[in-house]
Formats: sequence, C-alpha cells, structure tokens
Amino acid sequence: MKDNVIYSYPVINNSHTVAVVDDFFKSSRFPKPPCPVYYVHASEQAKSLRTVESIVRWLLEQEAGRDTLLLGIGGGIVTDLVGLTASIYKRGMPYGLVPTTLLAQVDASIGGKCGVNFDGFKNILGCFAGAEFVYIDPKLTVTLPDRQLRCGAAEMIKTFLLADAESYAAAVRCFSRGTPEPGILDTLVRRAVQIKSSIVAEDYQDRGRRHILNLGHTFAHAIEKCSDLYLHGEAVAIGISMACDESVKEGLLQPATAAAIKKDLYSVGLPTECDIPAAQLMKAILQDKKRSGDRQKFILLEDIGKPVIWERSVSA
Amino acid sequence: MKDNVIYSYPVINNSHTVAVVDDFFKSSRFPKPPCPVYYVHASEQAKSLRTVESIVRWLLEQEAGRDTLLLGIGGGIVTDLVGLTASIYKRGMPYGLVPTTLLAQVDASIGGKCGVNFDGFKNILGCFAGAEFVYIDPKLTVTLPDRQLRCGAAEMIKTFLLADAESYAAAVRCFSRGTPEPGILDTLVRRAVQIKSSIVAEDYQDRGRRHILNLGHTFAHAIEKCSDLYLHGEAVAIGISMACDESVKEGLLQPATAAAIKKDLYSVGLPTECDIPAAQLMKAILQDKKRSGDRQKFILLEDIGKPVIWERSVSA
Repeated sequence: MKDNVIYSYPVINNSHTVAVVDDFFKSSRFPKPPCPVYYVHASEQAKSLRTVESIVRWLLEQEAGRDTLLLGIGGGIVTDLVGLTASIYKRGMPYGLVPTTLLAQVDASIGGKCGVNFDGFKNILGCFAGAEFVYIDPKLTVTLPDRQLRCGAAEMIKTFLLADAESYAAAVRCFSRGTPEPGILDTLVRRAVQIKSSIVAEDYQDRGRRHILNLGHTFAHAIEKCSDLYLHGEAVAIGISMACDESVKEGLLQPATAAAIKKDLYSVGLPTECDIPAAQLMKAILQDKKRSGDRQKFILLEDIGKPVIWERSVSA
Repeated sequence: MKDNVIYSYPVINNSHTVAVVDDFFKSSRFPKPPCPVYYVHASEQAKSLRTVESIVRWLLEQEAGRDTLLLGIGGGIVTDLVGLTASIYKRGMPYGLVPTTLLAQVDASIGGKCGVNFDGFKNILGCFAGAEFVYIDPKLTVTLPDRQLRCGAAEMIKTFLLADAESYAAAVRCFSRGTPEPGILDTLVRRAVQIKSSIVAEDYQDRGRRHILNLGHTFAHAIEKCSDLYLHGEAVAIGISMACDESVKEGLLQPATAAAIKKDLYSVGLPTECDIPAAQLMKAILQDKKRSGDRQKFILLEDIGKPVIWERSVSA
C-alpha cells in the first residue's frame, strides 16, 4: 500500500480534476472545490451501484478521461463510492480523498477498501483500490453533528482496542467530556490512522491479519441489515459490546474488562445493546462476506490491545 | 500478468466452484459443467451492470464466498461479465475462463481486461483482473455459426497485422476457404494468443504499447455505438479498413497494401465499409475512453506487422 496519508493540503497538478462532494460538506462553511462538482446525498441507500452509475454519467458529461483526477470530499459513503467509481470508470482513473467526518478520517478512507451495498448486504460489491492521496485535516470535523462525531469515536476506539491501551483510555476521556479538545483530537486521529495503516500494510488483501479490523463488525453489519435505527459507528459500538460478551463466554476475556469497555462506550455516548432477536441476527451473519464455507471468523478480545481471530462453525 | 493460458482441461481443486455459462454453450453438444450453473443470454444489451447484479444475486443464493471459484464458459460477453463480477463480488473472488468462441479465445479472454457497456458506451465500466486460468480448446469453436467464426477471424487478423506477416497470410488463406482446417486453426489460435500475451505483458495497464491492440477499435467502438447492424468482429474489420485509409492519408502506408488488406478482409467474409455518416462517427469517437484531453490516439499501419501509435488533436 502506498504511504499516502498527508496532513497538509495536496497540490493538485492534474490538469483535469473533478469532485464528488457530499451534501453535508455542501452546507458547511468550507469553500467549494475549484473544479466541477457532483453532489451526492450521503445515505446508506445512496451507497449503491445506482449512485455509481449516476456519477459515471456525470463523468462522461465532463468528458473525464483515464487521467482525470476524481476527488472525493465527504464522509465514508462518499469515499467508498468514489473509490469504486474511480476503479471501474474506463477501467480505472486516479482518485484522491478528503474525508470530512471523523469516521472517514480514521477508518473509511484508510486502506483502499471501497464498496457499495446490494440487496441489503453492506459493502458486498467493491474492490481494493489505492487512492493517490488521502488528505486528513481534523479541523474539517469540527462542524460535525454530535451523533456523527461519536460514530467516528466508535471506530477510533475499535482501532485502539486492537493495539494501544493508552490511546484507548485517552480517546474515552476525550469523548466522554462533550466536545473533544482540538489538540487532543488531532493526536488521536494521527495515532488511529497510523495503527490502521500498519495493520493494512501487513495484509492489504484482507486474507489474515487485517481481519482484526473487523472487531465488532460481523455483528454490526448484521445489525445494520436488520435495522435502520443505527448509524454505522453505533452498530459497531453494539458489535464491540457483543464481541466482548462472546469473548467472556469463550473464556478469553475477564468479565470485569468486558463490563469496563461497555461502560466506556456508554460514557462516550454510544449504544451497547439492541433489541434485534438473536435468530434474526444469526441469519444475517450467515450471509456475511467474511464467511468461508461453514466457518465464520469473529474477532474477539483477550484484553484491551489484544485481539484474537476466532473461527467457529456456524449453521443455518 | 500471470502466464496462465492452458491447452489441457484444468483440474479444479477448489471445493466450491460455480459457473456462468452462455446460452449458446447451453444449446451445444458439450456437457454441462459439474457445478451450479447460471445461464446468461449473450447479447451486447446483456453486457451491463444489470446482468452483473443478477449474477451477484445468484452468487449470494449459492452462498459463494471470497474463496469460491467462478468459472466463465462462453464467448467474450460472458468472459467480460465474469471478470468484472468476480473482481467486485465481496471485493474479489478467483475466476477461471473457458472461452468457447474464436473471438474470446484469441482476444477477449486474454489480458485481464473486463468490462460492461453503459449508456451506449462499449466497455466503459470495467477493470484489469487476472484470471486464475484461461482454458483454450479450439475444438470448442467447431460448432460456432459461420458469422461468429469470422468475427474471431477479424480479431485474429488484427493481431497478426500488428506483429506477424506470415501468420497474417496463413489466417487469410485459412478463412478464405470456407470452414477452417482444425490443425491449421489450432496453430493460428496458439500464435495469436502468444502475440497478444506478449504485448499485454509489456504494458498490462494499457498506458503505452498495449494501445496497438486497439488497431481498428476506435472506429469499431464508434460504429457499434451508432449501429446495431454489426457484430464486434465485423465492426473491427470495418475499423481496420478505416485505419488503413487513414494510414494512407497520413502517408504511412502504401495505397496498394491498404487495398490488399481490405481485399483480404473481404475474402474472409468480413465487411470493410459502412454507411454511418462521418460526423456521427466522429462524435462517438470523441467520447471514446482512450481519449486524453483533446488528443485521440489512433493505431495506424506502416506495413503489415508494423503498427504506429498516432496521436492527433480532435475537437467536437
């Protein structure tokens, strides 16, 4: 993977640049990029091949070629849509990302995964595509609605749960006290990006080690499939809580640590449980894309900073 | 690129294999593959994201995972559809191709390009994806309708025009005399695959040398965009004839050689001209995916076996 995360605004030398921007950024106080812009309404429903097609139609109107740079400015929905569109438009055009939500900065824009939903399955169609650059500026997130900010906190906390107990504690402190302090947020974002990038670098194609980044996500995707009530970060927080419960059940994690993690998530303002029936969740899990035959991988925890890849057989 | 063209039937070790097969093969005397099969009606209209979605829906029903092998058995429409579907399903699954038309054997299945049409643009959405294997058996093409066989001859002749005057003459002889003799056809297919593979190996991502494979194709794609009358190979034959005319106009090719090539194509049973107005063709060419800014690349000929990449400015 290219080491392409930058923290200062990129100089774009490309003679032809076009941008896909989400409507939240449109309504923000940040200036419109100085190039043709296509606005996307960022919703899980819009994360579809239909939207990819709409962007493609617009790219054709703009006479975009294989050397045109496609900029994606927005949250994870835009960065995912732009990655997939750029990967298949004329068999591949270069793209750069400017994630504007905390979740996209610490998670969606890092690591080349892109994808869209299909028939209720999250990210079931996508690819691995390296952005030319990812420009991260935590200042862009200051105007985020509180609920969005806490969704970003969920992915950040997930990353720290995998590798860094100290940053985990710092993130919980930072988000438990209302609006995060900009200097601390900046440090936490850089650290989360660093951890995710190094895990991705070990296993870009997601065949082994990278699976740990799915802590809480097998449950989260099933929750999102069964209910529209939760934003992705919220489903991840519930999924992490479920993974903690499973880890205790399997005798891996101390019950007190599991309880502490759930308390931390709650103090950050995230949900830790949902009322979807277990049988319904299991059915959705069975169709998860990380399943291989009758085996399903779950990421469990032995402690904060100590993930385990746990495989067990599942059946319908 | 993997050197993965094989001429003996592959042993498939994959525990889970599923196949996409075109309806022509379905109606042939060849046996159905021993795995779940999805039948595709092979038409340019079916080469679309809609068909990719239908295949994906079926793959989900089959509980196909990231390790399931997707076999594509059929002509170029199936090999293109299968390549793209396999590339984006769950962010990538392995696939193997069994091209059953001459055109797919010498062209579509070789080199990793896959794609679908969109809004009347040929192959405008796709990617470069390496098949695990391509199994080529010229015997599979013996039951092809004559018109299909001649379309394959067009791509084969195109390849020989780029690199091998002797094989070019042999191919013209072979196809000018009704049904090709199996032994000669076998030799010609191997040679065409060899030439295409070596051109692709030099420039997999199609940034330079590989462009020569587009001899006749800028015109052909425009012809196919403007008219439903021609099969791809027929449009390519007309495109080669137009490229010959352009080559003469630019002072590159001897008029006698251009006339001989057109006579050869005609003797093989391929068209060498069409009655689409020049202005209409130019408009379609302007939207070709090989265009870069105001420059359009055309592949011209200095002689048989001597292609030139010719770039010139175009405007609407």
